[in-house]
Amino acid sequence: MSTALPAFVDGATRLFGILGDPIVQAKSPEVFTGRFRAAVANAVMVPMHVRADDFDEVVRAIKRIVNLDGLIATIPHKSRILEHLDHVRPTGRRIGAVNAVRRERDGTWSGDMFDGKGCVAGMRSCDVDPKGRRVLLLGAGGAGSAIADALADAGAASITLFDRNPGKMAQLADRVSTAHPGCKCEPGDAVLRDHDVLINATPVGMYEEDGLPADFGTFSPDLFVVDIVPRTPNTRLLVKARADGCKVMPGTTMVAGQVDAMVRFFFHQE
Amino acid sequence: MSTALPAFVDGATRLFGILGDPIVQAKSPEVFTGRFRAAVANAVMVPMHVRADDFDEVVRAIKRIVNLDGLIATIPHKSRILEHLDHVRPTGRRIGAVNAVRRERDGTWSGDMFDGKGCVAGMRSCDVDPKGRRVLLLGAGGAGSAIADALADAGAASITLFDRNPGKMAQLADRVSTAHPGCKCEPGDAVLRDHDVLINATPVGMYEEDGLPADFGTFSPDLFVVDIVPRTPNTRLLVKARADGCKVMPGTTMVAGQVDAMVRFFFHQE
Repeated sequence: MSTALPAFVDGATRLFGILGDPIVQAKSPEVFTGRFRAAVANAVMVPMHVRADDFDEVVRAIKRIVNLDGLIATIPHKSRILEHLDHVRPTGRRIGAVNAVRRERDGTWSGDMFDGKGCVAGMRSCDVDPKGRRVLLLGAGGAGSAIADALADAGAASITLFDRNPGKMAQLADRVSTAHPGCKCEPGDAVLRDHDVLINATPVGMYEEDGLPADFGTFSPDLFVVDIVPRTPNTRLLVKARADGCKVMPGTTMVAGQVDAMVRFFFHQE
Repeated sequence: MSTALPAFVDGATRLFGILGDPIVQAKSPEVFTGRFRAAVANAVMVPMHVRADDFDEVVRAIKRIVNLDGLIATIPHKSRILEHLDHVRPTGRRIGAVNAVRRERDGTWSGDMFDGKGCVAGMRSCDVDPKGRRVLLLGAGGAGSAIADALADAGAASITLFDRNPGKMAQLADRVSTAHPGCKCEPGDAVLRDHDVLINATPVGMYEEDGLPADFGTFSPDLFVVDIVPRTPNTRLLVKARADGCKVMPGTTMVAGQVDAMVRFFFHQE
């Protein structure tokens, strides 16, 4: 790419888009654009607020924009971009969802899932290795699926899944157990028992007025609490967890874990 | 809009797009993004390289991106965005083409044509008033149509039109003559006779390897030569014109004339 960057954008700028509904909370436009520019690449990641009903039409069409090189799909679109791809890389294939797609040099599109890898990398950066942990994971959507897969891959002892959709929950438990026989992954309730990690991978917390993703009693101070919502490190869940003496990990830490891998993917460096 | 701007973009950034094929030469991304930021608006104008075959599908779909507030259509799409609108403002209606469209507060889309107004404003900034002038205008596409209309509106004595498409040329001459009975607007050849202004509104000059839009002899030094191609002030036509002693106006001057009006349009200030 160019070695002289425009002040912001110019006619030669390459586009990346992040699709979500809502989208104002997304940190990716700032984070990725900053990374692109640090790499002296004339590229920008722009937010695209796309409603669920419009998703397929918009993705089909914007893939035809010649200078659009990649896309990130966020809530509620994470499971849906898959059908717009020519190739799915191994992690994405196993999970059945991707969150980043790119145009290959031959014009085809491929994708992979980076959410789970980002969550595990973030936990490790907080000195919490998933190995041997008993996790209560709320949400079996795109992000929840990826996190379950990555936790199992990283040696978690057990994962209790909770999702308001029982079918989704059972299907994910089956899939993770089959792919990772060493991890006991089961559907359950949003109730803390012998867990030492709680992860919120539901959208609850995306809005300032949101409450907790579930009703909990007082947390044990040994509990490690992760909220993947990137809007703020002060979601209701994290504020409560800190008040109860727990160590916490906000969504921004998970995002940081993903960004490196995704930038390499977008730049065809891996 | 926000009073604190992100370094480049963030999740709350509003999008504007310029659609063309090619697009790397477009100055609008820099110019408009600079203007948006000068107005402390968190908005960006991004280039969108869209091929003619994909135009309708892409426009239909991107209008569904909730934070996309407006579009500019450039070559070869200027005549085609019209059919995607709910309302066409008077100048655009008279010309039968628009180059800028916006989402209205009620969610409908409207458009107007700013090319011609920009060309006339640019000529005036070069101290060349179109009033009473005899103009040879090359190109009867979207930009040519708008320029013919604006020149007639500004009191040009005559406009000789040349386009490789004779039907287009005749239709435009009719339209301009009907709307502006005081201006003699006729189809003709790409040959200079008693003209005092020559305007290139064809795409010839967009590529560095392009030659002249037509074969001319030596220009009279009284001729005022306008090339609307914004790529460079040194198109083959303008280099030749300067060499022959003529005063010239590059595409960037026309662009400057348009930008004010378009920014006001995009910001719903007119």
